[in-house]
Amino acid sequence: MEKPFILITNDDGVDAKGIQCLASFVKDMAEVIVVAPNGPRSGQSSAITVDRPLRLRLEKEEELMKVYSCTGTPVDCIKLALNKIVDRQPDLVLSGINHGLNTSVSVIYSGTMGGAMEGAIHGIPSIGFSIDDYSKEADFSSLEPIVKTLVANVLSQGLPEGVCLNVNAPKGEIQGIEVCRQARGKWSEEFERRVDPHNREYFWLSGYFDNAEKHAVDTDEHLISKGFASVVPTSVDTTDYSMLKELKNWKL
Amino acid sequence: MEKPFILITNDDGVDAKGIQCLASFVKDMAEVIVVAPNGPRSGQSSAITVDRPLRLRLEKEEELMKVYSCTGTPVDCIKLALNKIVDRQPDLVLSGINHGLNTSVSVIYSGTMGGAMEGAIHGIPSIGFSIDDYSKEADFSSLEPIVKTLVANVLSQGLPEGVCLNVNAPKGEIQGIEVCRQARGKWSEEFERRVDPHNREYFWLSGYFDNAEKHAVDTDEHLISKGFASVVPTSVDTTDYSMLKELKNWKL
Repeated sequence: MEKPFILITNDDGVDAKGIQCLASFVKDMAEVIVVAPNGPRSGQSSAITVDRPLRLRLEKEEELMKVYSCTGTPVDCIKLALNKIVDRQPDLVLSGINHGLNTSVSVIYSGTMGGAMEGAIHGIPSIGFSIDDYSKEADFSSLEPIVKTLVANVLSQGLPEGVCLNVNAPKGEIQGIEVCRQARGKWSEEFERRVDPHNREYFWLSGYFDNAEKHAVDTDEHLISKGFASVVPTSVDTTDYSMLKELKNWKL
Repeated sequence: MEKPFILITNDDGVDAKGIQCLASFVKDMAEVIVVAPNGPRSGQSSAITVDRPLRLRLEKEEELMKVYSCTGTPVDCIKLALNKIVDRQPDLVLSGINHGLNTSVSVIYSGTMGGAMEGAIHGIPSIGFSIDDYSKEADFSSLEPIVKTLVANVLSQGLPEGVCLNVNAPKGEIQGIEVCRQARGKWSEEFERRVDPHNREYFWLSGYFDNAEKHAVDTDEHLISKGFASVVPTSVDTTDYSMLKELKNWKL
């Protein structure tokens, strides 16, 4: 039987430790192609590049693994891979492993999840992985069994079109895998105001995450805090169906 | 009674005709502040700027309207406005009017809708507006009554936290307003490959939209094609609740 074909991207760039670990975790079970940004693209969400052209570079070629870098966003990487690089539809798109969590509303800003959602839009089962460790030298080893379990399950059972998985893991030992929903919350942004040498002000985005559901036990935020890896099925259909019913009663 | 306070952004830039029309449509009913990118940011989705600082510039100041430009994305504009500019919470966030549709899966890539979703994340009722006309000189006049009706309704009835409205309108005469869901579909990307004067290849993103539900009559794509303005309630909770139930049966 032909080996499964897995397309991998991320938003920390092709040289990040997280994507190298992810590729190494799956390379014995699949033919792998990596198409990832040529540098950091954190916070790029599902952005696409429309104002300048993209370039691709073949970085590495082994028998069952090719690695390309791309000058665009994670979504650009998936689009370009599907349109100009692969000669058959991948069986799976993986994105990550992100250095830093993409729980709760961070899924909206995440370039990692932008890459996974793009796979789902194209009808390919897709999973984004993130770990609660921003460091360049983060230890991803505890995620290896989680990645292998989820990849095997998704390869055998598939996912509905337009739905991908958002997987987040705590740092260090993992208690198990739990399926859950996205917590409600927001970033409370505290921009840091500075003044440049020419006496003009500028602002750095910083801020901290505010969990709006501190007592809920069925959210990704809660499960991560208890040492579990969280799995949230994430839809590219953003319609709010309960509000849709209510809106039909408005006099518009 | 104090006038309502409306914060406006877009992704075509502060000088675009669409945002100027939007501000003019609501300026008699509200105090208005515009904080918009200093140039085009199409396709920026919910991207945030983390790798460089942002600058703000006061472009215009009238009694009940201030206009700022910002070097960041639409989401950066909303965050910076809420954190560093306004002295009270806006009653409404508006985004657009976008030059070009943001129906179906385009909501995912849209900087216009990124701005509206950011308002919803902050608990502010928010609406994104787009028209089926990419031209710089697009005629937005048919949208004036639609904008006024929706703004009045949302100001009086509010929206649930985390839900905003994605409003799209056809070019020219509008038959009415219809509430509906996001069509399934995808962009079939045809990158155009070119070769630069140094003999290196590069790729331009282009492509066309593929509606996966050509016979459905309850989608934004269908209603726009019939001459209606479509209103899709759009959630920042991307959890797929039906898949969540199914996933709980997987052996993970």
